[in-house]
Amino acid sequence: MKLKMMYSFLNSDLTVIENELEETIKAESPLLHQASLHLLQAGGKRIRPVFVLLAAKFGDYDIDKIKNVAVSLELIHMASLVHDDVIDDAELRRGQPTIKAKWDNKIAMYTGDYIFARALELITNVENPHAHKILSHTLVELCIGEIEQIKDKYNYDQNIRTYFRRIKRKTAMLIAVSCQLGGIAANVEEDIHKKLFKFGYFVGMSYQIIDDVLDFVGTEKELGKPAGGDLHQGNITLPALFAMEDSIICDQISRVHEGSERSDIEKIIALVKESGAIEKSLQISDKYLQKALGVLEEMPPSRSKKALRDIAKFIGKRKF
Amino acid sequence: MKLKMMYSFLNSDLTVIENELEETIKAESPLLHQASLHLLQAGGKRIRPVFVLLAAKFGDYDIDKIKNVAVSLELIHMASLVHDDVIDDAELRRGQPTIKAKWDNKIAMYTGDYIFARALELITNVENPHAHKILSHTLVELCIGEIEQIKDKYNYDQNIRTYFRRIKRKTAMLIAVSCQLGGIAANVEEDIHKKLFKFGYFVGMSYQIIDDVLDFVGTEKELGKPAGGDLHQGNITLPALFAMEDSIICDQISRVHEGSERSDIEKIIALVKESGAIEKSLQISDKYLQKALGVLEEMPPSRSKKALRDIAKFIGKRKF
Repeated sequence: MKLKMMYSFLNSDLTVIENELEETIKAESPLLHQASLHLLQAGGKRIRPVFVLLAAKFGDYDIDKIKNVAVSLELIHMASLVHDDVIDDAELRRGQPTIKAKWDNKIAMYTGDYIFARALELITNVENPHAHKILSHTLVELCIGEIEQIKDKYNYDQNIRTYFRRIKRKTAMLIAVSCQLGGIAANVEEDIHKKLFKFGYFVGMSYQIIDDVLDFVGTEKELGKPAGGDLHQGNITLPALFAMEDSIICDQISRVHEGSERSDIEKIIALVKESGAIEKSLQISDKYLQKALGVLEEMPPSRSKKALRDIAKFIGKRKF
Repeated sequence: MKLKMMYSFLNSDLTVIENELEETIKAESPLLHQASLHLLQAGGKRIRPVFVLLAAKFGDYDIDKIKNVAVSLELIHMASLVHDDVIDDAELRRGQPTIKAKWDNKIAMYTGDYIFARALELITNVENPHAHKILSHTLVELCIGEIEQIKDKYNYDQNIRTYFRRIKRKTAMLIAVSCQLGGIAANVEEDIHKKLFKFGYFVGMSYQIIDDVLDFVGTEKELGKPAGGDLHQGNITLPALFAMEDSIICDQISRVHEGSERSDIEKIIALVKESGAIEKSLQISDKYLQKALGVLEEMPPSRSKKALRDIAKFIGKRKF
């Protein structure tokens, strides 16, 4: 089943979200508007808004209220991509030139700032002040995650705990908070929105591990870029960390630096694949997936619960 | 009278603010903590916290509540400086290497993001949700101001209205909001916090115009950098715009570009000084100052009102 089919009952509300996204980034500054619109039109799965809407279905679902949260979360995700692309010197994203490529790093920096600020402005429409606290705290964590990732580039003396902490901050928190804030904006009980947070957190961890695995096993066509990009850029992910338990592979990986040859990266990819590190990583991802499904089991049955289950499973098994 | 003497009765509370600033930027990430601390220790006038505290004196002054606003506003100012230094490729600020110089642009970008996020997290401690709305909206305006400034670099086809709109967004709004939020956090009536906003806005406009004048008339020693820096970097400020009403000077100024010779800049500075543009700019600054003092007159008498008056006058007459 295709991802979109799993939540087709949200289609009209997702159109509302899409329009609202476009409305929100409208800026008096034509340059800012253009840059933001460019980013928006590059598309994306809008998976965070989907989580927000599905989570809100456990409470008093009112799209006029929920949309603020959904749009805000997607904007924060988008802003973090813009700043990420500056860090990674990325020229392309989703087949489109990045803002830093089409304009420059400076425009990208302030476009990111602007979108962040819009997101925070929007969340203030949610009456529960707890929502603002949660969102701003998530932003703090996101920034710490980003800085830690920069610091740990080409640092081969890091352990698996460091990795988990980093992907929690960089990915899982935002998905967790998408689910939680969807619940909060729909006035669910504390018990429920805490469960929604947990579910999102586990799904997010599973999602990021799969993402990191795909960077080793995906084809250039599937990934839209050559495999091994993380390694090449010095981002040491779970498969690399597991493979480094073998001292020979560890020695090879530790030699990777900014100017490493493509052919050396390819050799290492082959070694990592043979080492069993991919399977071990997938097992961890699956553990997180099972935890996510376990939390979901405690929720009352509904169409939304089924959709969340389907999405979580899809994410846990996706091939690209 | 020295600036600090004008509000010496705030001294112990300003120490609280200073400690709180240091406490707030503490991060689990040592790199982030170091970079933020570096910025904090470079000092600064902390004029925004001073405005917050003085404004709060018009209401129920409780330093434990007010400090959240004061620290938040100073953090936003600091974060905007970090991102500004990236844009301007600045190596030094207040005689210290900038974050982008000591580390790099990427660290500077995320340190700025982190400090922004911390500021927003802190403001959620203020119970009145109106405060969150005002602050996030100010951030949006700040970003638009920054982008417009980038867009308008070396653009000689801009008018004085563009200039006023830009300095409103880049400077005056944050000072206005410092005053307003100080009032709101101290539960003043709407009528009072709107006046505080106006006062801050007028002071901020006056302040920025003086700043832009000083860039023409200050000595290298006073400015800590050669005069004419704005012009050289393509920032067309009020004195330049007035001077450009003379077609000969307009022609000269319009030739300034990124690689212009220092000697050409010096010639233009002399022309601008002779043109009467400095005096015209100072008159405008003074008009804003008078408006600020006028708003203040409507406020009930107090020690705090006197301090605000003294500070406004000081800002309007400062030589560096």
